[in-house]
Amino acid sequence: MLMLPTFRADPRVRLVAAAAPREESRTAFEAEFGGTGHASVDDLAADPEVEAIYVATPHQMHADHVAAAARHGKHILVDKPLAVSLEDADAMVAAAETAGVHLIVGPSHSFDAPVALARRMIDSGEVGAVRMVQAFNYTDFLYRPRRPEELRTEEGGGVLFSQGVHQIDIVRLLCGGMANRITAMTGAWDPARPTEGAYAALMSFEGGAFATLTYSGYAHFDSDIWMDDVAELGGEKSPSSYGKARRALEGLDAEAEARLKTTRTYGAGSEPAKADHHEHFGPIIVSCDRADLRLTPDGVEVFGDFDRRFVEAPLGPVPRKTVIDALLAAVREDVAPAQTGRWGRASLEVCHAILRSAETGAAVDLTRQCGTIQEEEHA
Amino acid sequence: MLMLPTFRADPRVRLVAAAAPREESRTAFEAEFGGTGHASVDDLAADPEVEAIYVATPHQMHADHVAAAARHGKHILVDKPLAVSLEDADAMVAAAETAGVHLIVGPSHSFDAPVALARRMIDSGEVGAVRMVQAFNYTDFLYRPRRPEELRTEEGGGVLFSQGVHQIDIVRLLCGGMANRITAMTGAWDPARPTEGAYAALMSFEGGAFATLTYSGYAHFDSDIWMDDVAELGGEKSPSSYGKARRALEGLDAEAEARLKTTRTYGAGSEPAKADHHEHFGPIIVSCDRADLRLTPDGVEVFGDFDRRFVEAPLGPVPRKTVIDALLAAVREDVAPAQTGRWGRASLEVCHAILRSAETGAAVDLTRQCGTIQEEEHA
Repeated sequence: MLMLPTFRADPRVRLVAAAAPREESRTAFEAEFGGTGHASVDDLAADPEVEAIYVATPHQMHADHVAAAARHGKHILVDKPLAVSLEDADAMVAAAETAGVHLIVGPSHSFDAPVALARRMIDSGEVGAVRMVQAFNYTDFLYRPRRPEELRTEEGGGVLFSQGVHQIDIVRLLCGGMANRITAMTGAWDPARPTEGAYAALMSFEGGAFATLTYSGYAHFDSDIWMDDVAELGGEKSPSSYGKARRALEGLDAEAEARLKTTRTYGAGSEPAKADHHEHFGPIIVSCDRADLRLTPDGVEVFGDFDRRFVEAPLGPVPRKTVIDALLAAVREDVAPAQTGRWGRASLEVCHAILRSAETGAAVDLTRQCGTIQEEEHA
Repeated sequence: MLMLPTFRADPRVRLVAAAAPREESRTAFEAEFGGTGHASVDDLAADPEVEAIYVATPHQMHADHVAAAARHGKHILVDKPLAVSLEDADAMVAAAETAGVHLIVGPSHSFDAPVALARRMIDSGEVGAVRMVQAFNYTDFLYRPRRPEELRTEEGGGVLFSQGVHQIDIVRLLCGGMANRITAMTGAWDPARPTEGAYAALMSFEGGAFATLTYSGYAHFDSDIWMDDVAELGGEKSPSSYGKARRALEGLDAEAEARLKTTRTYGAGSEPAKADHHEHFGPIIVSCDRADLRLTPDGVEVFGDFDRRFVEAPLGPVPRKTVIDALLAAVREDVAPAQTGRWGRASLEVCHAILRSAETGAAVDLTRQCGTIQEEEHA
């Protein structure tokens, strides 16, 4: 549902085939796009009309579906997180590299235009070296309708794999990618939804930069009040919506909740609200030698030595256009974005390291990190 | 300068004596208050008119001055941090306990009325257990005029001892005091002012709560924009003041800078601006089981399960009245506040632990913590 408006609106994209287990979805797809609705991913991957495949299946299925696409020589855009287990991530990176196809992990909020703008400012040298990043996000994530496995950590449930990975992606992108150590605590505070709903982490990078990452999905404080009352997807947030997520779940059992979630699936009718701003993942402050950068839903506020100014990130014709830009550059020009399979594996490593550090009380050294420039990808 | 308006306005306080090395200050004191201006702290401590002494000397002198006061049986209010070294802190705690006098560390922002209000909400049980605290503050601290030793860490310079201790006090108060482990990174990014100007820390508490503490004194991002544009001392902040701290230092050598600082000393004329709000130490979010609390300069915003509401902390007749309340309760009723000598030593331990963790890259276990209820103080 998130990528569909992007695909529809971008003339560079033609949806020629899809795979879905639900016949309702396949029929809706063929009716709307005139392509082929396949019942299996393997059939989709074998379809000669297909040039690149977007894998938007549940996390734990990514590995099989990416393997199928790679086997048939298709380029791949896969939803974050790349996988749940690092073993799956290794296999996916190897499959794509062996097949010589591009594997891009997205969409993720590291593709948001204000993040890219901040990264360009840093690359230009105008603000000096990145020293410290503070990223936090307080959402209602844990009370959005869920399938039961989304509340089980071992199956990729909880806030780390679905939400933390966005924040990790952004922070790694701003700090150059090469994290080396992390210490973290997690919170699983609601016995009725017994998976991690919150975490706080302190992460350091090669070169000395460090970052704090904090997240709570318990639907209390809403950090969008410090993002100009703009919601994650870029739409205006109404103050009257407070408590909505919890209220919608009141009195529902697991089955009814899973049904409620299905109403958000393709073919069920509803569409995301119109966005007048960029997407975002909560307040982010980047402290550099000569300025701090505050990411906003409209661009970057630069707090310099003597002056404070705002640099707008122009709104594209459609949300998530930057993801298509990256896919096109990879497929047509063989230029990989930062967010490759290796990149996604590195962010996934951080998710696991947060869980492990919280469990052991000790710092975790990171060993599978990669930088923002992907020269090693095709080495 | 900070406590003077408080002393002046509170009818429970009579200033009967003072000690100061500068004759100008002693003369001004006697002219204004009609008491005795002593040239040494020992003479002040021996003055039979004196019931309690406020020690507001540079950090590294606190130990001697507290010892002198205790020796003469005077109760003591000492500026934060209690001391620079933990050995001094130990000696001060022992001196006060041996003499049977109260030793209170303040003022500190843990006395701010919104902090006390949040603590009362927590104690009432209405919001459930404290799970996570996020505290951050971005100020111009490093570019306020300094004496040279204030830029040397070993003499108590840098942001940890002067600024971090406020944040540590507040977070410990909200989490019950008994921190057990901390991991931190520090930043000393300006070679012209070579002391810690920033830090980020992850701290855990007995009972499982955890907190992130972030601070930057590099005068770039100003987190008061998320405190309703209210400055630390409770006054409205003008957007046109951006960059003021750095501009005031431009072209000054160390001597001229120290002179500039002296213009803020008692007897030099200027007074703090009027405050229409409570003092604060930056944004603080307290995540509890049934609500998150956001501390503001006017009270506490409560983000509950279904509703969001604001609870005002009524403004007293004068700033820092809560510090006098605590002093009076100790002197007249023998009731100690949370912020005793042992408390101050525990917060100082955290300052040192942050420095050590940043140096070694390892977590530091804390061993001198104390809780918010001071039953052990007079045991």
